[in-house]
Amino acid sequence: MKYCTECAAPLRLTVPEGEDRQRHVCTACGTIHYENPKIVTGTLPVHQGRVLLCRRAIEPRRGLWTAPAGFMENAETVQQGALRETREEANARVRIEALHAVYNLPHISQVYMLFRATLLDLDFHPGPESLEVRLFEEAGIPWGDIAFPVIAEALKAYFEDLRAGHFRLHMGDIERLPGPGRRYRIVHSAA
Amino acid sequence: MKYCTECAAPLRLTVPEGEDRQRHVCTACGTIHYENPKIVTGTLPVHQGRVLLCRRAIEPRRGLWTAPAGFMENAETVQQGALRETREEANARVRIEALHAVYNLPHISQVYMLFRATLLDLDFHPGPESLEVRLFEEAGIPWGDIAFPVIAEALKAYFEDLRAGHFRLHMGDIERLPGPGRRYRIVHSAA
Repeated sequence: MKYCTECAAPLRLTVPEGEDRQRHVCTACGTIHYENPKIVTGTLPVHQGRVLLCRRAIEPRRGLWTAPAGFMENAETVQQGALRETREEANARVRIEALHAVYNLPHISQVYMLFRATLLDLDFHPGPESLEVRLFEEAGIPWGDIAFPVIAEALKAYFEDLRAGHFRLHMGDIERLPGPGRRYRIVHSAA
Repeated sequence: MKYCTECAAPLRLTVPEGEDRQRHVCTACGTIHYENPKIVTGTLPVHQGRVLLCRRAIEPRRGLWTAPAGFMENAETVQQGALRETREEANARVRIEALHAVYNLPHISQVYMLFRATLLDLDFHPGPESLEVRLFEEAGIPWGDIAFPVIAEALKAYFEDLRAGHFRLHMGDIERLPGPGRRYRIVHSAA
């Protein structure tokens, strides 16, 4: 972020009067350009205990499996965003049952909100961002080929709930560990 | 939003290739400037069934009462943001108990996430954005002077749960109705 969206003058990183952290502030008109976390909203679409996953047709993590989810858009609700992403990525129609998980990913300033949902029919098929869409039972989940740790965590929590016969909200933080390689730490929190 | 943050050239509203809605796109370098909803995170700090509220020292709604809450910042968790806002607005230290409510405000592209929390001590006092900080029992809540409908809704839900002896997650949409005046509609959804 280098230039002001309101007057095109250069920005500089500085702590504005009365604030406690650096912001991008315009050197000409003084506009403060706030940056805030984004919500990723999606569903775990379920049919008789099996969960629908999409194989990604796009980077990052092309070829790996994920739940239908994406960035929430302005002027929609979290639930509407989850239904939209489920339609776009899997051409699937679902009924939202409950909020399944809220996971913080502070290293990339994202908050995942995933809903447990019931497939209304089995006429799903890949959207433009998916190579393949399939239902998996727990034993068939390709754990080594899940695109993102947050989705693996949400799936593990779903099957735990399914076995327990009781669904609950799951919350936690998924922190990327320093150093090379993709290593993460999961911290569960009160829900 | 008029100019590109990357190269200062003018932006125009257009539907980018492969997308389904208008975005601010740079006429020179092609950068797409996405805009997404913001999370407002906060707490209902409780002491023996009474809830801490802050009287706002700033606009909008100066002089009216609200729960400690504010925009979530990058690189923090929703819970860390809620604790930070509680400290900043009320100098209050709390322990988060559970997620109390998730409310969509699609007309202003905000998602409220409010946590039920227990006050760790009673040494709270107003921060720079508050005129006054007080504990209220249900009968004393100044319902006519609550700053935002979303906070009134969260308080009603809290006292309902308290009377029922059972706390649960509340979800819903708070929609501003068209026309003059501040009129809203609350739509509850599955949690």
